[in-house]
Amino acid sequence: MANLDVFFNPKSIAVIGASRTPGKVGHVILENVKSSYNCKIYPINPNTNEILGLEVFPDLKEIEEPIDLAVIAVPADLVKSSVEECIKKKVKGVIIISAGFSEIGEKAKELSLEKLKNKIRMIGPNCIGTFTPNKLDTMFLDRKRLKRPSDGSIGIITQSGAVGACLLDLASSEGVGVSKFASIGNKIDVDEIELLEYLGKDVETRCIVLYLESTQKGAELISKAKKIVSSKPIIAFKSGKTHKGSVAVTSHTGALAGPEEVYSAAFKQCGIIEAETTEDILDYAKILSSQPGLKSNKIGIITNGGGFGVIATDYAIKNGFDVVNLSKDAENALKKFLPKYASFTNPVDLTGDATTERYQKAIAAVLKDKSIAGLVIITLLQLPTMNDEILDVLRDTKIHGKPIVVCAMGGAYTQERTKKLEKLGLPVYPTPERAIRSMKVLLDYSKIAKK
Amino acid sequence: MANLDVFFNPKSIAVIGASRTPGKVGHVILENVKSSYNCKIYPINPNTNEILGLEVFPDLKEIEEPIDLAVIAVPADLVKSSVEECIKKKVKGVIIISAGFSEIGEKAKELSLEKLKNKIRMIGPNCIGTFTPNKLDTMFLDRKRLKRPSDGSIGIITQSGAVGACLLDLASSEGVGVSKFASIGNKIDVDEIELLEYLGKDVETRCIVLYLESTQKGAELISKAKKIVSSKPIIAFKSGKTHKGSVAVTSHTGALAGPEEVYSAAFKQCGIIEAETTEDILDYAKILSSQPGLKSNKIGIITNGGGFGVIATDYAIKNGFDVVNLSKDAENALKKFLPKYASFTNPVDLTGDATTERYQKAIAAVLKDKSIAGLVIITLLQLPTMNDEILDVLRDTKIHGKPIVVCAMGGAYTQERTKKLEKLGLPVYPTPERAIRSMKVLLDYSKIAKK
Repeated sequence: MANLDVFFNPKSIAVIGASRTPGKVGHVILENVKSSYNCKIYPINPNTNEILGLEVFPDLKEIEEPIDLAVIAVPADLVKSSVEECIKKKVKGVIIISAGFSEIGEKAKELSLEKLKNKIRMIGPNCIGTFTPNKLDTMFLDRKRLKRPSDGSIGIITQSGAVGACLLDLASSEGVGVSKFASIGNKIDVDEIELLEYLGKDVETRCIVLYLESTQKGAELISKAKKIVSSKPIIAFKSGKTHKGSVAVTSHTGALAGPEEVYSAAFKQCGIIEAETTEDILDYAKILSSQPGLKSNKIGIITNGGGFGVIATDYAIKNGFDVVNLSKDAENALKKFLPKYASFTNPVDLTGDATTERYQKAIAAVLKDKSIAGLVIITLLQLPTMNDEILDVLRDTKIHGKPIVVCAMGGAYTQERTKKLEKLGLPVYPTPERAIRSMKVLLDYSKIAKK
Repeated sequence: MANLDVFFNPKSIAVIGASRTPGKVGHVILENVKSSYNCKIYPINPNTNEILGLEVFPDLKEIEEPIDLAVIAVPADLVKSSVEECIKKKVKGVIIISAGFSEIGEKAKELSLEKLKNKIRMIGPNCIGTFTPNKLDTMFLDRKRLKRPSDGSIGIITQSGAVGACLLDLASSEGVGVSKFASIGNKIDVDEIELLEYLGKDVETRCIVLYLESTQKGAELISKAKKIVSSKPIIAFKSGKTHKGSVAVTSHTGALAGPEEVYSAAFKQCGIIEAETTEDILDYAKILSSQPGLKSNKIGIITNGGGFGVIATDYAIKNGFDVVNLSKDAENALKKFLPKYASFTNPVDLTGDATTERYQKAIAAVLKDKSIAGLVIITLLQLPTMNDEILDVLRDTKIHGKPIVVCAMGGAYTQERTKKLEKLGLPVYPTPERAIRSMKVLLDYSKIAKK
């Protein structure tokens, strides 16, 4: 397996097609590289000497130092000669942002580019770039409109730039961290399989997300994924599943998509977790990248909103969970401090006047119960008796070593706090159903990892 | 049918149990009434003369003017005598916020209260109050932590205070408007059936949401609902469906819940739209309260993110939609202004460099196509070539008379704009799947309404 580090953590970078004009792709890329990257940057443009305070070079030949990575954002017709120049300069890898290849029917143009793949490593063309938090951002999307997530443990591989970009934006908005991100575009060289293997070995990545529209290497994908999932979960979303959808894929990326059943069966066979909707992708990644394994289907539910306790219980049972009766010890522990109008059985209803202290004691009592393998904590943060100390209490649930999901539904006040909880490493969901469904995926993966 | 106007738009209000102490239930209610209500307010408290700048009365007897509505927030043991005082004063309706009745096993206490129901109209006990935007807020929840939505056309009836409150908070955060809100609690007098009939006739309400845990009047609910749904959609969420869930309902509200199949079948039979998850509730209400009927399953999809077009197409087909081929006229119209690398077939991919103008022309071309009954517009607002004029373009799609859903996925920048779009009367969803599923519910309801 080749080392793809150069795409995420290079020692020096050239931006070929760097532009002076704000808003242009070649300008935004340079802005993003400059604001994220701490090593040497070489903007390439024959018509200017300086952009964004950086010295500009007319071409790679003029640069004496070695270059690790080049980001290419020139018109499609100039891409091949740019890559050839990189080969001469012994650049290790290129990210080809430029579009105008097989996705618009220009197959010959793409093929002539593809022929260079034994001489240099290439990501793209027709991709949006790579991103490593606090290290490198080669994307052409404005950081004001599309926020980047902070450092975390979810690795993302995407065949659609748009979907990948939105996942980053959403992750940032929810406080969910990412380890590495790569948009593979038309994947003439580096593809999802190599990246899966790379992220499979990456110590910063605890869970891999793969957004796939098509693959020519189904069998290889399955056999490689099978090895990875025993130690690291892979979540895949496959689009282009219906006939009409696969026709749309063809005009979108120039590739052929396969029928739904084939992919779903193959994913299941090799232990890849399939996300059914785009919403599932981050929902599942959040829990799989942060929580320990769930050892059985016996879970506890704690709430300060009775109605939510009922919804969660219904949905948990529908999903095969056992909302098990608490042990006598746990019930007695709860009776010691809960008011008599609370509910001491599972789901435990701390009632609408619950305090942080009531949560702390109830969580400890339920997690000590040996029959409880994991806990769903529903907390309406807006209620008058709640305060922000609950954030610390929830963070400290980690010491019990059992998986936790939090459900907090609400507007701005609540969302500000759920973002903080995510940053503390807890998966938080806006509805009980999404919390339970994610817990179910954790249960499924825990069985796969055990095998 | 009694007129329940007094609970939403009374001419004068007494708050019995008004408190001087900030944070206390009787204080927060008075704050909320004061900040929402423009007519005469009478706080009742025998121990003080003034709260929040309002003259306080020791009891109702001291008030000379007539009183329309009383909100009661005194300890459970004092509720009955308060209601009796209201009866003497000829108060038309009371909202009993106080808890401590059948939900904690105090059935006798509740029964003695229930006996008064022929003498006065009562909402509650154990409820969180009523809310009419710009008119009246009798809730005991702090408006800083739990925001209230603006004026709109969704009417909400909820048996769970917590769930109802969160729906309001979420609606506010998404820019979705509400017409009237009532939390019915233990419903000793006013229940979901009377409120359904009331909102069924309310001109400000275009769609009714019912969150139900249990009912003793299933047959009546079904027959009344059947009449309402021919002109106004009802979305119901039923919790307490599993055995364990229904046990949790009992300890939560003291009522008995029924088995899942019975409710789902009954809802279907009378044309109530069932929400499967809490997320569905507002998703469905947004489209049903704002869009005209969908006349067939033939829809168009327009996108500036190819990947999202593929996802939407897949999901639409799975949900029984026909992502129909466009007419020659529509295709030719698109070819006139779209770049050659765009996709002129359905789903129409305007590609990542689409402008507002490209959207405007494409929307017009597709909506003019007679075979297209409705349109899914996916728009990544974060992309560099997009600007805020798209908001006006989307608002103006109304003139075509066909239903529209918008999908915009992303973080803060996107969410700020989707909130504006909601306020302009467009249903906006963060994922293609939620947009399509809501369109499917519109199709289902359009068939029910036609009958």
